[in-house]
Amino acid sequence: MKHGGDLTGAIARYGGTPQMWLDLSTGISPWPWPIPADLPGAVWQRLPSRAAEEALIAAARDAYAVLADAEVVVAPGTQSLIQWLPQLASRGSVAIVGPTYHEHELAWRIAGHEVIAVANLDELPDAVRHAVVVNPNNPDGRVTGHSALARAAELLQDRGGWLVIDEAFADMEPEISAVGLCVELPVVILRSFGKFYGLAGLRLGFAIAHRDVAQRISLALGPWPCSGPALNIGLAALRDKEWARCMRNAIQHRTRELDTVLAVAGLTILGGTGLFRLVQHPDATKMHAVLAAQYIWCRRFEWADDLLRFGLPPHKHDLHRLAGALASFK
Amino acid sequence: MKHGGDLTGAIARYGGTPQMWLDLSTGISPWPWPIPADLPGAVWQRLPSRAAEEALIAAARDAYAVLADAEVVVAPGTQSLIQWLPQLASRGSVAIVGPTYHEHELAWRIAGHEVIAVANLDELPDAVRHAVVVNPNNPDGRVTGHSALARAAELLQDRGGWLVIDEAFADMEPEISAVGLCVELPVVILRSFGKFYGLAGLRLGFAIAHRDVAQRISLALGPWPCSGPALNIGLAALRDKEWARCMRNAIQHRTRELDTVLAVAGLTILGGTGLFRLVQHPDATKMHAVLAAQYIWCRRFEWADDLLRFGLPPHKHDLHRLAGALASFK
Repeated sequence: MKHGGDLTGAIARYGGTPQMWLDLSTGISPWPWPIPADLPGAVWQRLPSRAAEEALIAAARDAYAVLADAEVVVAPGTQSLIQWLPQLASRGSVAIVGPTYHEHELAWRIAGHEVIAVANLDELPDAVRHAVVVNPNNPDGRVTGHSALARAAELLQDRGGWLVIDEAFADMEPEISAVGLCVELPVVILRSFGKFYGLAGLRLGFAIAHRDVAQRISLALGPWPCSGPALNIGLAALRDKEWARCMRNAIQHRTRELDTVLAVAGLTILGGTGLFRLVQHPDATKMHAVLAAQYIWCRRFEWADDLLRFGLPPHKHDLHRLAGALASFK
Repeated sequence: MKHGGDLTGAIARYGGTPQMWLDLSTGISPWPWPIPADLPGAVWQRLPSRAAEEALIAAARDAYAVLADAEVVVAPGTQSLIQWLPQLASRGSVAIVGPTYHEHELAWRIAGHEVIAVANLDELPDAVRHAVVVNPNNPDGRVTGHSALARAAELLQDRGGWLVIDEAFADMEPEISAVGLCVELPVVILRSFGKFYGLAGLRLGFAIAHRDVAQRISLALGPWPCSGPALNIGLAALRDKEWARCMRNAIQHRTRELDTVLAVAGLTILGGTGLFRLVQHPDATKMHAVLAAQYIWCRRFEWADDLLRFGLPPHKHDLHRLAGALASFK
């Protein structure tokens, strides 16, 4: 199970139809920003205009509190940025704070960089030129503070390297964002749109960096990286601050309810963010199979057989369904 | 004017609103495949599934007559493939048959390859390792035959290089496609979805190549390169062969009407495809400005001041409007 959010493998193994499954394998919010029914035909038909891209960038600047001396680049999902950054980075090895989202490691390896796993940013080996940290981290939710990030970025600046900070799950606690570091330091921040806004299929993400780095990323992506619908919907959603405020509350509330269900079932909650919870159980692998047999799909990990990750159940009755399925395990 | 299809610059200079302009600056069909009003919510909300991507690839195989030993890779527009290919190609210079769509040259230069302009594929310099040809060519519509393509590909194979064939405008005459060459030769074919299907905002394109090359492209793009709507709509549209058949006729008909309007106005038609016409006129630059003052936007070129390119006017009355504006020039 390389990724969450894809029932193709689950259905192949356990049967059922997509409608029968409760998919908790992902960190994508189950409550999407409401897409208007009447998207203008032009967003589908025409090449996205410069004006549309600039409007979205302005909205992202505001939503992510980007300072004047940093630039925003739009991309078809942060995954596309994860693919490009190692190609654009200078030769040299990279430290990745892990365990974490494994696509970072893959992309740096494909681009020919040596990858060194580290437990935290304060122990960067001398040989390392770049570093990647997911903040808050996926799957454990660990937060690296601004001072540790700044220290690492200063160190890597002396070595001609970059600090990539993947803030895919920072929307729930915007103060985690290290966006202020981009101006003076070689920091590249990734912001995912689809997770908090519940629109992962839209493929929209952002890189925030100093002008030089941002221009190189933009040149690499080329013209029209994002779809017309992504520019249109992203703009309206990022401007909708009232929705974001309410959604943060709703997500927090559901997270607490989910924690209760998990704790009652005897699982130890290790951490997470508002959009997923990491739990520990000695029989996690078996529990994963028992849930799957009841068409509940959670996330397990190749590197740990006692961990599971649960995303947010969309409805109250899904919480009850999960509670019932977990109870059947005992 | 780097590209057609973006009124941002036209409006900044000549005024008006997008609704007031007749945009003929692009080679995108003005008649989109009809998007269903009720796209399933999941295409927006969930990460695109492997099953959805595989279904689209199967439809593309069929639509583009891909042989069993070649592979299809989906991408968010062929532009994203144009950006990646030079990064993946072995070191060495590239010959680009031109004048043509200038993003190929840009992308190969950014990736550090020397770029050599050639007039046709039969005069590849000895030093060249790769070649790019747009077939049929944009903007003049010139077609390179299968035997010339095969000869060039065999030559480049001996040098460890690739022949990239950009078939962005091959939909009107599918027999132009050199898709059969992919099996035995190092040929990478690019197919654009958005132009013929009138859905450029969707960002969808394909690479067709031998298994090894296709896998490298796929690995570079990473997971979920395309949006859920693109997979969903692309699948339905590529399966809709009756629509494609009728649309070819409708486009041919409108092309003939457009040619008449252009010829009557004293323009010499040099060539093109069903989706655009390249014309020559000694006062082309002035004509471009006169049309723009009447909110008609056609395409001119930095490398030739006597050429203009016209896309298809969507409605009969647009043809009349164009005829009237051209008449005002005389």
